[in-house]
Amino acid sequence: MGEFFRVRSPSELLAEMDRFASTGEEVVPLEEALDRVLSRDVLCPHDLPPFARATMDGYAVKASDTFGASESLPALLQVVGEVPMGEEPDFSMGAGEAARIATGGMLPSGADAVVMVEHTQVVDESTVEIYKSVAPGEHMVSKGEEARAGERILPEGWVLRPQDVGLLAALGMDRVWVHRRPLVAILSTGDEVVPVEVVPPPGKVRDVNSYCLGALVRRWGGIPVHLGIVPDSPQELEARCREGLERADFLLLSGGSSVGSRDYALKVILSLDGSEILAHGVAIKPGKPTLLASVGGKPVLGLPGHPVSASIVFAVVGRPLLDRLSGRRFAHRPRPIPARLARNLASAQGREDYVRVTLEERDGELWAKPVLGASGLIATLVRAEGVIRIDAQAEGLERGSLVEVEWWG
Amino acid sequence: MGEFFRVRSPSELLAEMDRFASTGEEVVPLEEALDRVLSRDVLCPHDLPPFARATMDGYAVKASDTFGASESLPALLQVVGEVPMGEEPDFSMGAGEAARIATGGMLPSGADAVVMVEHTQVVDESTVEIYKSVAPGEHMVSKGEEARAGERILPEGWVLRPQDVGLLAALGMDRVWVHRRPLVAILSTGDEVVPVEVVPPPGKVRDVNSYCLGALVRRWGGIPVHLGIVPDSPQELEARCREGLERADFLLLSGGSSVGSRDYALKVILSLDGSEILAHGVAIKPGKPTLLASVGGKPVLGLPGHPVSASIVFAVVGRPLLDRLSGRRFAHRPRPIPARLARNLASAQGREDYVRVTLEERDGELWAKPVLGASGLIATLVRAEGVIRIDAQAEGLERGSLVEVEWWG
Repeated sequence: MGEFFRVRSPSELLAEMDRFASTGEEVVPLEEALDRVLSRDVLCPHDLPPFARATMDGYAVKASDTFGASESLPALLQVVGEVPMGEEPDFSMGAGEAARIATGGMLPSGADAVVMVEHTQVVDESTVEIYKSVAPGEHMVSKGEEARAGERILPEGWVLRPQDVGLLAALGMDRVWVHRRPLVAILSTGDEVVPVEVVPPPGKVRDVNSYCLGALVRRWGGIPVHLGIVPDSPQELEARCREGLERADFLLLSGGSSVGSRDYALKVILSLDGSEILAHGVAIKPGKPTLLASVGGKPVLGLPGHPVSASIVFAVVGRPLLDRLSGRRFAHRPRPIPARLARNLASAQGREDYVRVTLEERDGELWAKPVLGASGLIATLVRAEGVIRIDAQAEGLERGSLVEVEWWG
Repeated sequence: MGEFFRVRSPSELLAEMDRFASTGEEVVPLEEALDRVLSRDVLCPHDLPPFARATMDGYAVKASDTFGASESLPALLQVVGEVPMGEEPDFSMGAGEAARIATGGMLPSGADAVVMVEHTQVVDESTVEIYKSVAPGEHMVSKGEEARAGERILPEGWVLRPQDVGLLAALGMDRVWVHRRPLVAILSTGDEVVPVEVVPPPGKVRDVNSYCLGALVRRWGGIPVHLGIVPDSPQELEARCREGLERADFLLLSGGSSVGSRDYALKVILSLDGSEILAHGVAIKPGKPTLLASVGGKPVLGLPGHPVSASIVFAVVGRPLLDRLSGRRFAHRPRPIPARLARNLASAQGREDYVRVTLEERDGELWAKPVLGASGLIATLVRAEGVIRIDAQAEGLERGSLVEVEWWG
């Protein structure tokens, strides 16, 4: 096994990553903006809502006219009109006056609250009894209550969720400036790897990583560009790496589980113009034989061949790289779940361990149960609900320790 | 306000939903299978892995030959060959023999463990010293360790995550049978609603729901079909409802915050062939004015006009409907986060309350802080990190109560 000459911790690698940045911006229609990343701050173009609206069916009133009103001592108000739905009322209101209004209706000027219809009684054509006092602002939303004109309502780098898309609609943004989704070239290496549709002859394995990594790239905001499989040949590997760097913003190599291909990868990447090795070896398990380089300003990440190791390294190192390239600064990932560890776990000091776990409820508490099995076994990640991290300083964790389970999927 | 004549609880509605089922199946290439739902059980076509493989670089051995081996008393084994990467070894191994092997290499028959290269020393061309004993199965994966031929490895109804895509690749499934994604027609109603690109005149509001609901439909596995906005006219509403039911598998109406349009929706849906009202009014807040019907076997869901109410009702009622239509039975949603409630919350008995919250860490504990604001204010859902549910039996929750925060976004 070749020696690793520049072993780095994940946090050291994170510090190197700010050299990589968004690959550009584009405009998309709002219908397609879900999960895209804002490339510009969104400023509120006008007060939102732009006018005061009723949130209940009832009567628009001056709140002060209802003070002290009750079932036994109702306030008597003069009905001066009805607010037509979707239109600006053509009257304003003075003291002692009320106007019929439906939910969503625009409050006439002079009104500062709404009394629910349930708390009123029509006396005659022009008079209504009010049985309950309301505070100013009750059963209505005020002009500018969501946001004021000019306010920064969403920042650059924000990943758009359904509710954010709704907010942009409310602001009238039918098109949105977003960061371009980075193209990620994916290359599997190794004489032992065959395409998925092939029945592998004895000794060979199917190309799991291209699919697994492609799906992770999609999940985390990139567009996979599949370059296929390259055998253990430095010439071919170099040609495909050049192709990947031309076609994409980020090059992912996986494999080389054989000694030979591991060495090729490093030599080939060193031979490319403008290459700089940022890490050769990362202090995590699984995943030590990881290679990170910058080639002509684009990141190149060499992942171990085992699918579980490749997935975990891609989560720990590749995802933050994708975040930089896609401008994601606010990604709204679900928080980790606190749980108790179901058995002792050993761990070597000086490296971070990532352990697949299932979650089980016992006596009202969640327990994280490590999933055993080699990192070549993708089914172990299928069975897992998440992953826990054991700190590089720890020598292991005892049964019952509180851990945080990072959701996986 | 019209009366609700068939108010149902969310759990009563869930019980009604099994009448709706998957809208069909199709085949997709594995590269596009992420987040799709398996429409058939996946059986393992052969043992996985199909042969025993080394998981470390070193020597394939018979474990029994290494028993008792140590630095001071190494076992001496005869090297009978080297396993070529990606090929079936052309030799088998007997007692006292070893073979060089790299990670991923196929174990020769007769071998049942691998000794790491670090624990060996070459003596000469044909002899190696072993410094550490290994147990049978150590540093290797066995044939069939992931799954046995014929075993059901993923069930129908499973939503495919990246690791599942990897597993299907390992099984050689370059194409996958999945449930068709249901088409969901989305119609906004109300004289007060204008298209997003229009600057709303006083009294009117932009069509937030079409976008917000469209994004939620996408998020939860459907394909939105935008039908636009229909004014408060029973004739037009009927025509657009018929169009929606022809073009899609599920019809979503939103709005009618005005009294008139609320009544139209019910009448129009009752007038359609084969319509059956499953709920008129749902016992949740926000969201009571919700209408659920079956028309010719397709679900029709009428949502309140306020964007927050519409989103919450769509999560509570619409998402399980989408689950039925898309065959999703195992959806791997992130678990809710336990937190303590940061202030008292009142709630009426007999209805479920859904409260937007932010999460804040204080003294090592997570606190859920209710986000105040009318359900017409979409920005309140943008500020929220999740939603908590107050049970229909509860009259409210006290500050400090343990709540579960359902992640939102």
